[in-house]
Amino acid sequence: MPRGPAGRPWRFDINLADDAVDPAPSHERLARALVREIQRGRLDAGALLPGSRVLAESLGVNRKVVVAALDELCAEGWLEAVPARGTRVASVLPTMPVADVHASRTNWHSTAENKPDLQVSDGAPDARLAPLEKIARAHRSALTKLSRGGLGYGSAAGDPVLREVLAKFVNQARGLSCNMDEILITRGSQGALSLVALTLCRPGDFVAVETPGYVPAWRAFELAGAGLVRIPVDEHGLVVDELEAHARALEGKLKALYVTPHHQYPTTVALSPERRSRLRALAAEYSFCLIEDDYDYEYHFDGTPLLPLSATHDPAVSTIYLGSFSKLIAPVFRVGYLVADAAFVKRASLVREIIDRQGDFVLERAIAEPIEDGELQRHARRARRVYRERRDTIVSLLQSDARLKDIVQVDCPAGGLAVWIRVNSDVSVSAWSRAAAQRGLRFAPGATHVEQGDPPAFRAGFASFSSAELERVVSVLSASLHDL
Amino acid sequence: MPRGPAGRPWRFDINLADDAVDPAPSHERLARALVREIQRGRLDAGALLPGSRVLAESLGVNRKVVVAALDELCAEGWLEAVPARGTRVASVLPTMPVADVHASRTNWHSTAENKPDLQVSDGAPDARLAPLEKIARAHRSALTKLSRGGLGYGSAAGDPVLREVLAKFVNQARGLSCNMDEILITRGSQGALSLVALTLCRPGDFVAVETPGYVPAWRAFELAGAGLVRIPVDEHGLVVDELEAHARALEGKLKALYVTPHHQYPTTVALSPERRSRLRALAAEYSFCLIEDDYDYEYHFDGTPLLPLSATHDPAVSTIYLGSFSKLIAPVFRVGYLVADAAFVKRASLVREIIDRQGDFVLERAIAEPIEDGELQRHARRARRVYRERRDTIVSLLQSDARLKDIVQVDCPAGGLAVWIRVNSDVSVSAWSRAAAQRGLRFAPGATHVEQGDPPAFRAGFASFSSAELERVVSVLSASLHDL
Repeated sequence: MPRGPAGRPWRFDINLADDAVDPAPSHERLARALVREIQRGRLDAGALLPGSRVLAESLGVNRKVVVAALDELCAEGWLEAVPARGTRVASVLPTMPVADVHASRTNWHSTAENKPDLQVSDGAPDARLAPLEKIARAHRSALTKLSRGGLGYGSAAGDPVLREVLAKFVNQARGLSCNMDEILITRGSQGALSLVALTLCRPGDFVAVETPGYVPAWRAFELAGAGLVRIPVDEHGLVVDELEAHARALEGKLKALYVTPHHQYPTTVALSPERRSRLRALAAEYSFCLIEDDYDYEYHFDGTPLLPLSATHDPAVSTIYLGSFSKLIAPVFRVGYLVADAAFVKRASLVREIIDRQGDFVLERAIAEPIEDGELQRHARRARRVYRERRDTIVSLLQSDARLKDIVQVDCPAGGLAVWIRVNSDVSVSAWSRAAAQRGLRFAPGATHVEQGDPPAFRAGFASFSSAELERVVSVLSASLHDL
Repeated sequence: MPRGPAGRPWRFDINLADDAVDPAPSHERLARALVREIQRGRLDAGALLPGSRVLAESLGVNRKVVVAALDELCAEGWLEAVPARGTRVASVLPTMPVADVHASRTNWHSTAENKPDLQVSDGAPDARLAPLEKIARAHRSALTKLSRGGLGYGSAAGDPVLREVLAKFVNQARGLSCNMDEILITRGSQGALSLVALTLCRPGDFVAVETPGYVPAWRAFELAGAGLVRIPVDEHGLVVDELEAHARALEGKLKALYVTPHHQYPTTVALSPERRSRLRALAAEYSFCLIEDDYDYEYHFDGTPLLPLSATHDPAVSTIYLGSFSKLIAPVFRVGYLVADAAFVKRASLVREIIDRQGDFVLERAIAEPIEDGELQRHARRARRVYRERRDTIVSLLQSDARLKDIVQVDCPAGGLAVWIRVNSDVSVSAWSRAAAQRGLRFAPGATHVEQGDPPAFRAGFASFSSAELERVVSVLSASLHDL
């Protein structure tokens, strides 16, 4: 007989409304019912749940339904899996987004009556899936070791242990062939972008960028004094012909191309194999550097991930490869990296010393641990399965919604944590975004990804949402179309 | 009867060489003897020691000697105090400096036979005194809260909780009067310097700096395209007359003065009250900004700390005040801050988004906790006592060494974590530094703090060293003079 938190025997008196009353799938109804029990305090933080078999029997439902409900609640952060012991109520229950914490300074549990705003990201992962406990433990032990040990100053290129572990990781997982002297640990991908820009560019230089594209990267090149050359993107990625015309016209002043070939930001398309090889040839001919931002390599769902441009070694092509742990773990970990030849890493280290001397060695060491022991790779595989399902869910919800299906077009992306939603040109996406905000759904219109104008499209991150949350996203999108 | 780690009763068979054999003070001899016991494994990690009274009796020494020895070993990280339980062997024993960890990848305990290099910092605190356990716990709880809670993106100005707590802290402790909108959390003081430089300066601007001075700050202004104007420093601090001449000649192109008025870097002198008021008047007259780096405010030993220049509110004078937790806790925590008017904080936040988007909210929240509950302030008071003693120790060691006393001159600084050691002009400090390195002592010559030349002086941080370590520093300094 399962026992309650204080050892009292109790029964799961969960009232599952039947199919006729509530059309949601039964695992969803069970999940909501369990959340209510937690919110009422009948299930305390830390309380161990009975096994799925016992639960299924006592509730009179199929065991698969129970497993699906528990999985969902683990992903949402209400429950957590305890190795070899089962599932328990999370010690810290889901709270509101960081940005809003200050307003209330108290934990706040979402209830059916008082739903928090949903924020559609540009492709954030679900931090609820990440091995945070493991990283917290590793952080604590790294803190004790590194703080006691010495002055706390070290190489501006980053913690040597993480650089070594990471070299192995990118060589195995992404087909690169680098050693630790070719790696520099950065403050997230933005830290890598500003560092590359300030190391590479002088006033008078030009950098080519994709448009629509990742505007924070544009700003980094501008901060370093570079001028921008905007190259359009079509369904095969960057239009290489246009790039060639500019490279020729700029006569040696084109310093670099910033490109997202794997899952173009924001359109999600992959750069075609033919354009990839033309790009490399152009880089060699016009001596510009390829800055390849591979921000979510792990999350490729259909077919094999394309190898990075930087994976083909060719002494005539100079590449700087950028990666990050923000997508692989959680954005709150501002740790990214660049891979480039050792001479560039040295130059960038000198600039890095000026920018902020060095990174956070404690955090860097803490992240090295789950890479070294394979936990991060296992997490990536698990997360990939979850995100693929969520991608399928959002695409099918968008395609089947009665109102939306005539207004939007969405191609199922082969990878990445966001979809690119194209909208009939008679709809102003900026106006739609404002209307949705009134209904508690915040999303950035396509205007975010261009210098000016209101393109008929937007990027919607899906990976951080459970299927129930995705349903809410799509239903608010649909409802707010009406308000326009 | 005290019991050993496994509950076995044991006696402290510590063999204290008597005064005739070993001239070290008896608490030093006891401390070294205890370290040997730990290294031999007779005292396990975590083992609780008998009380000082019991220890004193069984060793036949004065209890004060025992207390002094235990204090010293706590400071060095061999022992740790357990609230209400006494003193135990540290769970993690002192290891080598971060920068060297990679070479061996194993923990390494210093022994009398195989001493590690001593690295004289430019004024680092002793991380062994810092409330690291508390911060580690706070970090873990912040990680769980913030990562589960949301996307992990927030304001580029930093964690709102830390900004609020910090505003109270600097208002109370340093006489400022700011609110959280006037605070921006940075990546250590270097992160503040590069951010201020990139926000404030354009190519063609000039920034005045002290010379000798803090060269990493110079590099930040140069990175932003500014030209430098070097102003000399004498025994009253920055020579304000020279500054005035330059301000007049530059006709409005002098954007800012970077100054360390409290404990000038590297000379440790305080800016005289008369010059402080002239400086403020000049800043108003020539409309340049005062960038005041108050990197170790807490550590003022003699008399009351001078109020920051930024504490006097005057709408005609624009100030940017820089502080950091690197000195207050440990350099491994790369968290600093700037205090300026809200409009500047907004502009700097936009630049910060380009540099690295935002800080580490988990670490920032973890640091807010010990400020809010007063633990950090208690730590600062304790550390101040320890550092004052260490200052007195290094000054008296330098003044009493038979060889050094004729070669060096050192004034006892009123505050700060370093002394400025002036050297007879016939000694090349760079050559001395190289000779000392051969004997395992690394220190930076005065050449580090000027654009060119080998000034007859150097800065020596003392705060991270126990008295035994300070003795070793001075004895190697003395011995290596012979090698020149």
